[in-house]
Parts: sequence; C-alpha cells; structure tokens
Amino acid sequence: MIQTLQVALGDRAYPIHIGSGLISQTNLILPHLKRKQVAIITNTTVAPLYLENLAQPLRDAGFSVIEIILPDGEACKNSETLNQIYDALLENRCERSTTIIALGGGVIGDLTGYAAATYLRGVPFIQIPTTLLAQVDSSVGGKTGINHPLGKNMIGAFYQPKVVLADIDTLQTLPQRELSAGVAEVIKYGLIRDADFFDWLEINMSKLMALDEAVTTYAIYRSCKNKAEVVAADEHEVGERALLNLGHTFAHAIENAMGYGVWLHGEAVAAGTMLAADLSQRMGWLTSADIQRIYAVFTAANLPLDAPKLGVEKYLDLMGLDKKVIDGKIRLVLQQGIGNALITSDYDADKLKQTLEAIA
Amino acid sequence: MIQTLQVALGDRAYPIHIGSGLISQTNLILPHLKRKQVAIITNTTVAPLYLENLAQPLRDAGFSVIEIILPDGEACKNSETLNQIYDALLENRCERSTTIIALGGGVIGDLTGYAAATYLRGVPFIQIPTTLLAQVDSSVGGKTGINHPLGKNMIGAFYQPKVVLADIDTLQTLPQRELSAGVAEVIKYGLIRDADFFDWLEINMSKLMALDEAVTTYAIYRSCKNKAEVVAADEHEVGERALLNLGHTFAHAIENAMGYGVWLHGEAVAAGTMLAADLSQRMGWLTSADIQRIYAVFTAANLPLDAPKLGVEKYLDLMGLDKKVIDGKIRLVLQQGIGNALITSDYDADKLKQTLEAIA
Repeated sequence: MIQTLQVALGDRAYPIHIGSGLISQTNLILPHLKRKQVAIITNTTVAPLYLENLAQPLRDAGFSVIEIILPDGEACKNSETLNQIYDALLENRCERSTTIIALGGGVIGDLTGYAAATYLRGVPFIQIPTTLLAQVDSSVGGKTGINHPLGKNMIGAFYQPKVVLADIDTLQTLPQRELSAGVAEVIKYGLIRDADFFDWLEINMSKLMALDEAVTTYAIYRSCKNKAEVVAADEHEVGERALLNLGHTFAHAIENAMGYGVWLHGEAVAAGTMLAADLSQRMGWLTSADIQRIYAVFTAANLPLDAPKLGVEKYLDLMGLDKKVIDGKIRLVLQQGIGNALITSDYDADKLKQTLEAIA
Repeated sequence: MIQTLQVALGDRAYPIHIGSGLISQTNLILPHLKRKQVAIITNTTVAPLYLENLAQPLRDAGFSVIEIILPDGEACKNSETLNQIYDALLENRCERSTTIIALGGGVIGDLTGYAAATYLRGVPFIQIPTTLLAQVDSSVGGKTGINHPLGKNMIGAFYQPKVVLADIDTLQTLPQRELSAGVAEVIKYGLIRDADFFDWLEINMSKLMALDEAVTTYAIYRSCKNKAEVVAADEHEVGERALLNLGHTFAHAIENAMGYGVWLHGEAVAAGTMLAADLSQRMGWLTSADIQRIYAVFTAANLPLDAPKLGVEKYLDLMGLDKKVIDGKIRLVLQQGIGNALITSDYDADKLKQTLEAIA
C-alpha cells in the first residue's frame, strides 16, 4: 500500500509517496522528468544497497543515468563536496532540463537540493530519502544547504523537489542508532502540534522500533502531514515554521561543540528537546507528569537524553549564532503542554541559565 | 530629476531609481531596511570613491554598518571570494533581517546577490550599481551567481533586490572602455525589441558617450524598462527572457577562451552580436543596410567588433557548454530586422560555420 500526501505550495506543490518497494517503481518519477537524462547523487554507504534498484529501471526506460557517489557523513556537508557535485554535473554537461535525484539521508538530500537550487540557477530535483530522519523531516519543506566552519546550515536556499519517494524498505538496513535519531523528529511533531499523535506514539513505539510496516508507514505519513501543513502556512520561516525547531537551538550548540557528526542530529534534538522541556517546566508551562511522559517516550526510542557538559557560557555563545536570533535576543521554541509549542523570547533568562547549569 | 521604474514581479516587485546624487539619499533605501544593521559589499576600486557617501549618512541615521571590501575584477567572481563574504557576515553575526547592499559593478552585484540569496537561506539585499553595464543589465532581473572554472555563471540563483539605485554620477569615474562596454548592452535592447530606441541611439550616441545628464538618465531608464518588461513576463528564463542573450552565446565563448576579464563582458557581447548579425544576414533575415547600421552604432560607442580567431571547432565546443543548450542542439538568439530578435535552433548549421570561418 502506498500512502500519498500533497504538499500545498501553489505552483511549487509536490507529492510525497510513502510505502514499501518504491525505489524501483519508475512510474512514480517518470511523470516528473523533463528529458531522458538524470543525475543520481548518493554516497558510498547507500550506493551498494540501493543505487542499482533505482538506476537500472531508468536505464531500461531509455534514460542516460549519471551516478555521482560522494563520501558519507555530516562532515562532508560542506563546500568541497558541493564543488565535487558541480564538477561532475558540468563534466557530464548536465543541462537545465536534467533532473537531479537525491538518494540517501539528510546530508545527501540537503547537499543535492542545494546543488539543484544553484546549478545553472536551478534545475529540477527529486528526493528519495533512505533514513527515517530524512523521510520525516529534511525531505519535506525545501530547506537545502551546507554547513560552514562557523555554523551549521549557514549557507543554503529554499528549494522544493518535484516529488518525494519515502521507501520504508530502506529502513531495514539503517543502523539502530540512526533509526532512533529519526524517531526523535517523529516525536517532535506530537510535542509541538499533535497531542493525539503523541498518544499514538506512546502506544505504538515498540512496533515502530521493530519497523512494523503499517505503523511505520503511518508514522511517516502523519509526520510529513504535520510538517507539510506548517510549511504550507509559512514556507520561508517568517513565523510558525520555526516551531519545527523545537530543541534545535540547543541541538545546534551540541552538534557544533562536539563536532558535526559526533552526535547524530536526532540525538542532539532529543537532548535539546529535554532541555527545552526543562526550561518550560521552570516557566510553569509543563508539569512534572508531562516531563515524565516526554522522557519515557524518548527512552523507549533508545535516545540519549543527557546533554554534554559544555558549561553555561559556551551554550549561550553557540546558541547565539543560530539563525533564529532576532536583534541579538535568543528566541526559543518552548512548550505549553504536550502538543502545543510556542516561539518566544519572553522567558526568564535566569531560568535558561538554571536549565543549562543543571546539566553540569 | 529622479526617474523611477517599477519591476512588476508580484510579491517580489521592486523599484529602480535613476538619477544624479542618489547614493547619499538615504531616504530612498530606509523604507526597505528591516533593522538597524546593514552590510555593504564593495571592492577596492569603488570603496575610496563612493563607500563613505553611502555609509556615513546611514551611520548618522543610527545604523550599524559593516563594510566588506573585496578585490576588483571578473577573476574574483568565484567561490573563494564568495566564502570571504560568508566569513565576514558570520564573523559579524549578521542575521536574517540584516540587509546586504551591493555597491559596485556587475561582479559585485552578482556576487553580493548570490551571497544574499544563500546566506541563512536568503537575506534582503539592495543593488547600487556603479557601472553603466550593471545599471542597465545585471541589476535588473535577479540573476545572481559566480563563475566556475568550467564555465561562466554556472552557479547561481534567481533572487530579487528590494530596491535598485542607479546613480549616474558614478559613471564620471568609469574608464572609457567600461562605459563603451555598458553601451553595448544599451544598444542590445534596441536591437532585440525596441526599434524606436535604436533610432534614438543613432541620433544621441555622442551625447550618451559624453554622459549628458538627460540623455544618460533616459538611456538607462529605457534600457531598464525593456529589461523589466522581459523579466516580468519570464522571470526564470523558460522562454522570451533568453532574447536578452543576443550575442551572449558567442560572447561567453570569447570570454571563456580568452580568460575571464581579458575582454570586458560588453565588448564580447558587441563582437558576439556582430557574429549573430552576420549569421542572420546569411539566413536572409537582415539586409546589408541593417548590418551597416548596427556596425555604425557600435563603432560610435568605440566598441571592438573583431572577434578573436579561435577556430570554428573551439567556438562550437565552448558555445555548447552554454546554459541555452536544449537536448544537445545550440539555440541562438538571432535577428529578423532591427528591433526584432528570435530564439531559434532552426538555422542552417553550415551557415553558422561560415560565420565562424569568416572570423579566421
């Protein structure tokens, strides 16, 4: 069974197909290709597992298929790897009508999307996310980009794919740690705007961790639906979209301090979300029962919840570099009950320090 | 007198102000600034001439002004210089609401616009073009980008400014050769879609070359008006906008072969336009009288019209790398009479070779 969701973005609207065995279903992507040339961008981990499943049916359909295989890992999400992509596209004389396909996790999706946004000032692209994190988060909403030595995702563009295929079979080969990291973002949607989904996750977490087909497909569908609704209302993150960054200001500080890739993004988000919950509790916006529920659901997903001991000053400094800063004041996404987040700079700065001190 | 033109692009519409003494008229840009921080990007040639005229009134109005001064020249329109901009913006903690101002010629405008399009996934920017070429061409229409060792403008984005100030006083310090290069693009508008303007230019060319205030303001206004109409109808160059590339496929081959910056862009466009005219005449679409008029008006603007002798094969190879290629066939902008250009791959390939052979 394939579940399909439409991301409503006017003339940039696109469908997300979710289900089993989608990678080799060429019929799902053929309507979106403008000419008989595609470039598939993937990495050394994913290529041996899934590249031929995608490439061979396209070749059989008469397509010229260019394969660009990058090294794996968050550390490669930089301008050097981006230049490797540009070089390969130019050497193969890819044109404005060549479609670029991202086959891989969030790093491949962000890099490929950004390359597609900027090569010849923009060429069509397709996302085939192969990690849970990429399926529920980075493949929806058009954020693309690379890291800079001074900060994560500092360089990028908003650029929408033509279609997204979330093939749940790829999760079978995902390391447990990465599966958990993806579940962190799934839980996030429950926390910020969908209390019913949070309840459902409390009940179904063990089936999700075991990759039960129906549960997994539904969890991805409902996560994408939540994200798509937020993005449709605020494509360029001038308002509500920032809710999706629950835990992320803390998480970016953790990732930056520890070195990109040491903590997985979802792991840092889980720990960051607990810090946001702690501050929310200090503000009187969450009860201790809420905190226990949040802690329990993250724990059931095998997520590490102890943020690293960086010291208050380092946290504040690294959090200040974040894109969510307005006029020098750190805005945060906090919670007022489960299923209801808010973006605010109207919190007690001393309580933020207490939250950060409580780590050490 | 200030002439103002509105570029009609829906929610990305913006005004172009043209006239004398605009750089220090802070009132023209204040309505477009979101917060009291701006970053001015300029180069070592323009900075001593005009940077303080712009920066001082902004500081007097209470703004924090970051100055980023780059080396000068087309050779700097690359990823290294772009990284210099990112570094400076990050080191100064520029935020999403910081406005970036481009003060300089086409290279500064393209680099700055691209940095603005991609820094934090997009921040507001303002164009203050200081060369005639930038005033009539690169500051209108939102094309931004950088060169790649394998081709010019291969990496970029469509990104619109909030406002453009074309201050004609800056043309007083422009080298004669660069003034001529700008006039090449002015003539282009007459050739592709405005026969009346071509007639006007034949009559007024000596006043334009002498920078008569009224003639210069009008020539810039009418050029921008032509370009704005084309861009409004086809922002992302899927059709008519490609008319603006008259002479450019030849010109890019010339610039690429000679090394970026050896021929000025406008000089290469003038020589390329004569090649396009030659092919158009061979196709029976221009008369020899037309050719003489075109030749005469370029000559009155002191433009070099003899394309370099690269050989037919090299021309064809370099032209094939151009973005205007569709399915491997070189599309060209050719003319059917003065004031009427067309985009076509429906020309005789042998006649194209004859045109290129006639150079050597």
